[in-house]
Amino acid sequence: MSVDFNTVANEFCKFYYQQFDSDRTQLGNLYRDQSMLTFETSQLQGAKDIVEKLVSLPFQKVAHRISTLDAQPASANGDILVMVTGELLIDEEQNPQRYSQVFHLNPDGNSYYVFNDIFRLNYS
Amino acid sequence: MSVDFNTVANEFCKFYYQQFDSDRTQLGNLYRDQSMLTFETSQLQGAKDIVEKLVSLPFQKVAHRISTLDAQPASANGDILVMVTGELLIDEEQNPQRYSQVFHLNPDGNSYYVFNDIFRLNYS
Repeated sequence: MSVDFNTVANEFCKFYYQQFDSDRTQLGNLYRDQSMLTFETSQLQGAKDIVEKLVSLPFQKVAHRISTLDAQPASANGDILVMVTGELLIDEEQNPQRYSQVFHLNPDGNSYYVFNDIFRLNYS
Repeated sequence: MSVDFNTVANEFCKFYYQQFDSDRTQLGNLYRDQSMLTFETSQLQGAKDIVEKLVSLPFQKVAHRISTLDAQPASANGDILVMVTGELLIDEEQNPQRYSQVFHLNPDGNSYYVFNDIFRLNYS
């Protein structure tokens, strides 16, 4: 019955980035009212504001590539912490930008939602 | 009475990296038996094993420089999530290595300990 946290973390991130890259207006299902997003220096709370922010990002085409993905159980309640480092390809840019992202996933019935989400580009 | 999560996160990271860079044998006080560390591809649990791993890292001199630090409340219980991106200077190397690190801090009386710790170098 209980699914391994590594499997959940991998499947969640795969789904999240596929959804982000194909149609980010649909990401709201993965957040709740209490969810938080830090995107670079912007801070948002709640599925509605979070999706509005993600949709407003100034690019049309985007592709995430995961470089590393590490997960740990984050409490006795089934929470999962995931840290991703990866590359972001935007529009017609040839050079990917590196990023780091953390998701704190909370269980919700048979599924999970994002409680915390912190995203930073890695400037060099 | 209640301290702002941003203040806690900043003070924790400042203390953690100062301690790491000056004498990492003393980091055990910041972990507990249930604490987890993912350091690159190594996974450890418990203050003793975690400190043993950190002490065994093959460098004498090390300096962490924080580039970005972002924190969020991680539950209703006072947990705090912190994501750091930064640079690591090792021994006599002139070129810093970039890294990403997540700390999930749990309250413990008037203090906090590290429940989750995930560290990755950002290879380019």
